[in-house]
Amino acid sequence: MTRPRVVIVGAGFGGLSAARALRTADVDVLIIDRHNYHLFQPLLYQVASGLLDPSEIAHPVRTILRGHANTDVRMETVRGIDLERRVVHGDEEISYAYLIVAAGSVTNHFGNKQLAAHTMGLKGLTDALSLRAKVLSRFEEAAETTDDEWRRHLLTFVIAGAGPTGVEYAGALSELFSHLLPRDFPRLDFASVRVVIVEGRTRILESFHPRLGAMAAGLLRRRGVELMLGRTVAEADDRGITLDNGARIESETVIWTAGVRASPLGEGLTPHVAHSGRVPVRATLQLPDHDEVQVIGDLAEFEEAGQPLPMLAPVAIQQGKHAASNVIAMLGGGLPTPFRYRDKGTMATVGRNFAVVQIGRIRVAGFVGWLMWLFVHLTYIITFRSKAVVLINWGWNYIFYDRPVRLITEVSSDRATDQPDTEARP
Amino acid sequence: MTRPRVVIVGAGFGGLSAARALRTADVDVLIIDRHNYHLFQPLLYQVASGLLDPSEIAHPVRTILRGHANTDVRMETVRGIDLERRVVHGDEEISYAYLIVAAGSVTNHFGNKQLAAHTMGLKGLTDALSLRAKVLSRFEEAAETTDDEWRRHLLTFVIAGAGPTGVEYAGALSELFSHLLPRDFPRLDFASVRVVIVEGRTRILESFHPRLGAMAAGLLRRRGVELMLGRTVAEADDRGITLDNGARIESETVIWTAGVRASPLGEGLTPHVAHSGRVPVRATLQLPDHDEVQVIGDLAEFEEAGQPLPMLAPVAIQQGKHAASNVIAMLGGGLPTPFRYRDKGTMATVGRNFAVVQIGRIRVAGFVGWLMWLFVHLTYIITFRSKAVVLINWGWNYIFYDRPVRLITEVSSDRATDQPDTEARP
Repeated sequence: MTRPRVVIVGAGFGGLSAARALRTADVDVLIIDRHNYHLFQPLLYQVASGLLDPSEIAHPVRTILRGHANTDVRMETVRGIDLERRVVHGDEEISYAYLIVAAGSVTNHFGNKQLAAHTMGLKGLTDALSLRAKVLSRFEEAAETTDDEWRRHLLTFVIAGAGPTGVEYAGALSELFSHLLPRDFPRLDFASVRVVIVEGRTRILESFHPRLGAMAAGLLRRRGVELMLGRTVAEADDRGITLDNGARIESETVIWTAGVRASPLGEGLTPHVAHSGRVPVRATLQLPDHDEVQVIGDLAEFEEAGQPLPMLAPVAIQQGKHAASNVIAMLGGGLPTPFRYRDKGTMATVGRNFAVVQIGRIRVAGFVGWLMWLFVHLTYIITFRSKAVVLINWGWNYIFYDRPVRLITEVSSDRATDQPDTEARP
Repeated sequence: MTRPRVVIVGAGFGGLSAARALRTADVDVLIIDRHNYHLFQPLLYQVASGLLDPSEIAHPVRTILRGHANTDVRMETVRGIDLERRVVHGDEEISYAYLIVAAGSVTNHFGNKQLAAHTMGLKGLTDALSLRAKVLSRFEEAAETTDDEWRRHLLTFVIAGAGPTGVEYAGALSELFSHLLPRDFPRLDFASVRVVIVEGRTRILESFHPRLGAMAAGLLRRRGVELMLGRTVAEADDRGITLDNGARIESETVIWTAGVRASPLGEGLTPHVAHSGRVPVRATLQLPDHDEVQVIGDLAEFEEAGQPLPMLAPVAIQQGKHAASNVIAMLGGGLPTPFRYRDKGTMATVGRNFAVVQIGRIRVAGFVGWLMWLFVHLTYIITFRSKAVVLINWGWNYIFYDRPVRLITEVSSDRATDQPDTEARP
């Protein structure tokens, strides 16, 4: 007797959470991802800045789901979904009785090919490794050149976007540049190093209370990060960027964190994707015309109080669990129930000792916030074996002010298609 | 007043050892390497088999030499050396008063382009990461295919060469395949997995006493590794290899550890390179016609008792130290002294709990050998920060029989030219 097959597309926070909740259900679960690993994306900027190793934030999906007797894992790129025939197009056709699509989001350059060509993303593991290699190579080249102007270009780092990713990465870079690299490059004049954040809005960390954003901005400025607020990147070329007001910043390294859109897979699920590329779903997470298909996480346009839920890990995790319970209900002849989001709050860290935390009406900034941030992140990764390694690396870094991972290794560029690179904040 | 400049080409075991010994000398030291890191190559196979992370065996040269006030580091590819004008050709010309060339060795395909195109090396960090990704991808693909013959091809792993690298990697693979991967791929029939070593000589680990080689061979066979001795790889194509006796092995993954030759940089130093590409040097390590140039490590053809010294880390380390002392002697108006190698022994490990160790007349095999191997390797890396992390990873692996690092990440292929990827055994 064959059991109904539940196919989950994407092994990010949403997909894994669904698979976990289906562990004891009387179904065959198949989870498909382009990569063989689940990425703990909230700490990706720490790989990009050389604090953590990839294996400390990325874990094989098969190992995570090893205890699941009803679950199979495939590393495969999903190219499309045929809702009528109920098949997923991978290397071959995969049929399903129930489908949970958790394909996540990708970097959004708003159709600007120049931006895409001349900036670097910070969304996937390959992005982070490329970025780490690029940043360190700039210093190697700057240490060699005798051309002062060229050296200044090499040592100017522009981050477009002041959301959590941009802010956390800027904080990590400013730490790297002020404490560690001067010891590795004692003859280099670090006064010419610039970290610039360009943000279209007039404040940073827009999803937080303005007071928290202002405190984070103050700290970044004290740490030497330049904030260009109310400005957008109009053009990028191989020498730098031009802002919307015509101002020019010469830079060899522009990091684009200013846009995220849902996976292109969404376009095959509905003729009416939202502006962000997300797929509108019913209150139950189901597609309007397909009871058997649920869409969750970054890919789902789920409105609550007139606002779509943010692209955050807790949303994906809760929706994954809910989608699984809906499948179990339908299997038993019952009805799916509406999803309701329980706000677990958001947090962002700005270098060492400082984080902003917002949980409902509770707002914390500073060292206490940082301890909360540390606690939450350690709790999140407690299920993975590398907790001890992460702890030691962090402890070492904290005590000795060192960034252990500063290797320049080559990586090929590798664009996200179906990987649920959730812009995730637990 | 400018001090004489000592240029060291290569930051492998030899180059680093020379730089360390020159720390307090009244000279300016410049060490140049293609990479920004020093590679602890004896543990490279552990990266290739997913036990260790790259940052655990690779360390930034700048960080290692941070305390050296007289030393500068450059990440640059050395394209040639002009002995008459006393300059090194990098991105620009670098002049020297004294030169120590420690450019190491590269994989040798004996001019067979097919071999080079259809096999993978295990010499540099990029090799190891590519190999790790390839091996794991084979299992992902094997888990999906319904074609039994194709699955057997995917799961056949051929290692050409039964020196320490080949044997250690075979041991690591057999552990990975017998203990860990079956848990990640519970539906895959592991009876069809093959690890085959092809070796032209009639025994493995030729540099060890025959008794030790035989014990290692026995252990490998008990662990399921097939040994094809007295056979060489005649041809390689995209479906597998053909042996010299015409026998065919269909395999998607052929690892070439059967040949090493000195860096091509040696050809610019002498018209008379040895068969292995090594540069003949005087008893003092100096070039015959150039007192100011010393060649050390894998690149140097240094004969003792009529035999060239092996390409091993201890040789490079001792020669680096000696070359530095020669420079110091010449600076003081003295004469360079002849180098003499103190044999520190060799060891190779075959998976967990078993190593062969040979120190002079002392020969050990088994668990005690493995403890010695562990002790020596931990002592060697004690100068690097990651000791604690390595210890924890090994401890974890030992207790839980787990290989923590099983990420398939893309890396671009990256051939060695001047990197002293010493075939090193401490």
